[in-house]
Amino acid sequence: MILAVYPGSFDPVTCGHVDIALRAAAIFDRLILAVYDAPAKNVLFTTDERVAMARKAVEGVANLEVRKYSGLTVRYCREVGAQVIVRGLRAVSDFEIEIQMSTLNRKMAPELDVVCLMSSEQHSFLSSSVVKEIARLGGPIDGLVPPHVAEALREKYRRGGDGPGIPRYLSS
Amino acid sequence: MILAVYPGSFDPVTCGHVDIALRAAAIFDRLILAVYDAPAKNVLFTTDERVAMARKAVEGVANLEVRKYSGLTVRYCREVGAQVIVRGLRAVSDFEIEIQMSTLNRKMAPELDVVCLMSSEQHSFLSSSVVKEIARLGGPIDGLVPPHVAEALREKYRRGGDGPGIPRYLSS
Amino acid sequence: MILAVYPGSFDPVTCGHVDIALRAAAIFDRLILAVYDAPAKNVLFTTDERVAMARKAVEGVANLEVRKYSGLTVRYCREVGAQVIVRGLRAVSDFEIEIQMSTLNRKMAPELDVVCLMSSEQHSFLSSSVVKEIARLGGPIDGLVPPHVAEALREKYRRGGDGPGIPRYLSS
Amino acid sequence: MILAVYPGSFDPVTCGHVDIALRAAAIFDRLILAVYDAPAKNVLFTTDERVAMARKAVEGVANLEVRKYSGLTVRYCREVGAQVIVRGLRAVSDFEIEIQMSTLNRKMAPELDVVCLMSSEQHSFLSSSVVKEIARLGGPIDGLVPPHVAEALREKYRRGGDGPGIPRYLSS
Amino acid sequence: MILAVYPGSFDPVTCGHVDIALRAAAIFDRLILAVYDAPAKNVLFTTDERVAMARKAVEGVANLEVRKYSGLTVRYCREVGAQVIVRGLRAVSDFEIEIQMSTLNRKMAPELDVVCLMSSEQHSFLSSSVVKEIARLGGPIDGLVPPHVAEALREKYRRGGDGPGIPRYLSS
Amino acid sequence: MILAVYPGSFDPVTCGHVDIALRAAAIFDRLILAVYDAPAKNVLFTTDERVAMARKAVEGVANLEVRKYSGLTVRYCREVGAQVIVRGLRAVSDFEIEIQMSTLNRKMAPELDVVCLMSSEQHSFLSSSVVKEIARLGGPIDGLVPPHVAEALREKYRRGGDGPGIPRYLSS
Repeated sequence: MILAVYPGSFDPVTCGHVDIALRAAAIFDRLILAVYDAPAKNVLFTTDERVAMARKAVEGVANLEVRKYSGLTVRYCREVGAQVIVRGLRAVSDFEIEIQMSTLNRKMAPELDVVCLMSSEQHSFLSSSVVKEIARLGGPIDGLVPPHVAEALREKYRRGGDGPGIPRYLSS
Repeated sequence: MILAVYPGSFDPVTCGHVDIALRAAAIFDRLILAVYDAPAKNVLFTTDERVAMARKAVEGVANLEVRKYSGLTVRYCREVGAQVIVRGLRAVSDFEIEIQMSTLNRKMAPELDVVCLMSSEQHSFLSSSVVKEIARLGGPIDGLVPPHVAEALREKYRRGGDGPGIPRYLSS
Repeated sequence: MILAVYPGSFDPVTCGHVDIALRAAAIFDRLILAVYDAPAKNVLFTTDERVAMARKAVEGVANLEVRKYSGLTVRYCREVGAQVIVRGLRAVSDFEIEIQMSTLNRKMAPELDVVCLMSSEQHSFLSSSVVKEIARLGGPIDGLVPPHVAEALREKYRRGGDGPGIPRYLSS
Repeated sequence: MILAVYPGSFDPVTCGHVDIALRAAAIFDRLILAVYDAPAKNVLFTTDERVAMARKAVEGVANLEVRKYSGLTVRYCREVGAQVIVRGLRAVSDFEIEIQMSTLNRKMAPELDVVCLMSSEQHSFLSSSVVKEIARLGGPIDGLVPPHVAEALREKYRRGGDGPGIPRYLSS
Repeated sequence: MILAVYPGSFDPVTCGHVDIALRAAAIFDRLILAVYDAPAKNVLFTTDERVAMARKAVEGVANLEVRKYSGLTVRYCREVGAQVIVRGLRAVSDFEIEIQMSTLNRKMAPELDVVCLMSSEQHSFLSSSVVKEIARLGGPIDGLVPPHVAEALREKYRRGGDGPGIPRYLSS
Repeated sequence: MILAVYPGSFDPVTCGHVDIALRAAAIFDRLILAVYDAPAKNVLFTTDERVAMARKAVEGVANLEVRKYSGLTVRYCREVGAQVIVRGLRAVSDFEIEIQMSTLNRKMAPELDVVCLMSSEQHSFLSSSVVKEIARLGGPIDGLVPPHVAEALREKYRRGGDGPGIPRYLSS
C-alpha cells in the first residue's frame, strides 16, 4: 500500500494541479493533496479557502483526500505514513528547485522518495501566480482554473481593484 | 500595416531596450514602446519620468512612439489595434518567462503574436535591475544606459544614499 | 516592404513548422520558407521531396513561397533581398543554439535581423527528428505532421524496415 | 496492481541506473527494467550482455525483472500491461528530452503515465557514455558502475586499445 | 602574488561555502572571504555574527582571512589589491546570474577576473536560504552547515517560533 | 607555484580560446595549453597543425606553453604536476557538461581542481565547430579566429569544396 502526498500552497488550485493530482491518484493507492497552512498575509486565499477550493476541484476521486498541514513537508509525510512525495514539473526553473528540494528531502528522510510527473502540454506554462496576475488585471482565466476558482478569483479582485505591482513579465 | 507594441516597465530604459526598440521599428510599420503605469512605490522612477527618459532615448525615429498604459498588455494591444507584441530575449531565465507569457497571451488573444528579438551580445547580460544595483552602489553605468538616464540614476541615488539590500549576486 | 526568410532542413516539414510559417506570413509582407539543399546522405528525404512536402503543407497562402537554397543562410537572404530571418523557438536547447546563430548572423550581416516566434504549446516538444524516430518504430504520427507527410514517412519506413539506432531518449 | 517499466539502452548499466531501479521497485508493485534491443553496431555491449549485466546488478529484488524489448516503448508497455514508465532525471539536458518524450508518449498512449525520479546527488553527473569514455582512456570507473560491469568494461577496452574519438568534454 | 576575494552575504556560511573557500585558498596565494555588510533588516544574522561564524568555519587556514566590506564588490577588490574574484557555481540559475555579474564586473574592472569553482556534488543543491528554510521549520541541518552555525540557527529560530512564509518549493 | 592546464581539441583555436588562455596565464604561475592528440579522422586539422596554430596564437606569453597530450586529462595533469584544470564557460549547455566533467575529474583526482573562466561577451557564442561551419560555407570568419587560423581554414575548405552536412542550426 503506497500513500503519496502532493504538497503545495495551492493559492489557488489550478487546472495544472488538478491534472497532476488525478494522475497521481491513478498511480498510487492513496493520495493526500496537502495544502500548506501559510499565514494569511502571504497568500491571496486563506488556508480554509484554499482547502475548500482544492477539495471541490477533485471531489469524487475515492482515493484522494485534501488536507491542510504545517511545518516541514517531510515531517508531515512521516506523520501520515507516506512513502512518496509527488511533484509536478513544468519548466527548467521548476526543475532546478525540485531537484534541490528532492535532494534535501531525501537527506532528511531517506525512506521517502520524490516522484515527479511532467505537466501536460496545455498546462506547461501555468502557475498560480500567473493566474493571479491575469485575474488581478481583469484578464480571462477560464480554462486555467476550475470554474469555481475562477469565480473566487474574480470576486477577490472585484473588491481589491487594480492592485499594485508590475506584471512579472514586464519587470526586467 | 503592422503595428507592434514593445511593453515593459522601463525603470529605467537601458541601451539594451533602445537596441531592441530600434530594431523592431526597422522591421514593423509602426512601433509603440509602451511603458507600464506602475504605482510609484514599486518603481524607482515615476511613470512620467520613465516615459520621458524612454522618449528622449529613441527620439528622431519617425515610426516609434512612446506611450504609457495600464492593465493587461493584450487588452492594451487590442485597443491600439496592434498585431504584434515585441520582446527582447537575453538569457535562459528570460526565455522561460517569455515562453510562458507568450503562450498565455496567445490563449487570451489569438490574433496577437509575440515576436522575440535576441539581445545583441553587448547587452546580453544587461537589465534595469542590475543597472540600478550598480548605480546604487556608486558604480559606473556609462554605456549601459543612455547618458541622460545615467545622469538621472546618479541624481536619484545621490539623494538616497547607499540604500538597503544585498546585491542580488551576493544573496545566495 | 519586409521580406522574411524562414530557413531549415524541413526533413520533413512538421505541424510546428507550418504553424510558425503561417504566423510569420501574417506578420511580414512576404515570406520565403527556404529549404536547405543538403546532400541525400544527410537527410531522409531528398531536397525535391522536402520542397514538395513543404509546398503542399502551406499552399494557398498568397505571400508565402517555398524555395530551396544552399550555402550560407545570410548570403541567401542578401541575394533575395530579405531583411528578416524567422526562427521558431521551442525549448531551452533551441534557445541556446538560436542565440548563438543569431549573434553570429548579425555579425556577418548587421542589416539582417533574426526574429523568433515561440512554438505553440501543442508543438512545444515536436521536431522533425522525433517524428522520424516515432515513424521508424511504427508509432502514430498523425497530428504531428500534415497527412501527406505522414503518408510519405510511412511509405519511407515501410521499405526501410525497423532500421538501426537507439531511440534518442533511451541513449543515455 | 501497478506495473512500471524502466526502459533504456543500459550500455552498460551504471550505479545511477541501479539506484533508480531499486527506488522504483520500492514504489511500484512490479518493475520491468527493459533493455532496448539495439543492433550491435550502435552499442558497446550486445543486447544479451547488457541484459546479463543489468540482471546481475539488481538480482535479489523480488518484484524487479530484467527483459529485452524492441520497437516503440509505449507499444511494449501496452503489451506487458504497464501503467507507468519510469525515468531518471539528472541535469537540464535530461529534463528537456524527457519532457519532450513524456509529452509525445502521453499523446500516443494517454493511459500510460511517465514518472520521473531525481538522481541521487552522487549520481547526478553519471551516464553510460561518460563511463565508457573514462574506461576507454583507462581511467578509474569503480564506484560509477557495479564491479562486474567495471570488469567487463576493462576487458572490452583491453582488447580495443585506446580507440578513436575526442573526449566529449574536449570537443568544443 | 595573486590575491583573491570570495564575496558573499554568508547568511550564514554553509558547508558549500567552506568547501569553495578552502579550495580557493589552495589555488591562490591569499584569499579574503569578504562578508557583505548588509543592514540587519535584510539578513538573519548581523554582519558581526556572519563574520564570526565564517571566521570560525575556516580557522587554521593560514592564507585565508575573513573580513567585512560594503559598497561595490569590484571597488573593494581594487582597494585591497585583488586580481581575482572567486565564485562557487551550483546550478543553472547560479550560472545565469554569475555570467551576468562576471560580464559586468569585467566591464567595470577589466584588470579583475572572475574565477568559478564548481560545487562539490554533495553541496550542489545547498544554499543559505534553503538551510534557513529548513531550520525555520525545525528540520535537520547537520551536515549542511558547520556545527556552530547549526547551533546558531537553532538558537535563532527557537526564539523566533515557526515564522511566516511559504517554503520556497511550495510557492508555485 | 601553481601550474594550470587548459585542455581541449582546439580544432582550430579561436579568439575565445586565446582570451581564456591569456586570462588564465595572468592568474596562474604557469599555464600549459594542452592540445588533445586525436586521430586525424575525427578532426579537421592534424594534431601538429592544431599545436602550431595555437602556439602562434599565444606566442610571446612567457609563462604559457602549448603541448600535445593523449589519454585521460587528469592523468596528464598529474604527469606534469598540475594542480588546476582551466575551462572556459559559455552557455548553459557548456555548463552542464563542465559540471559533469568537473565532478568526475575531482572523483578521479581529488588533488586537482577545475577552475572556470566565463567567456567574454564577444566570445559568448563562439566555438570551433561554428567557425568551421561558417568557413565551410564560405562565410566571413575574421574576428572569430586569429588571422593565421582564418587563412588555414580558408585554405582547407578551398580544396574541400562545399562539403556535406546541414548547418547545425538548421538541423531540427
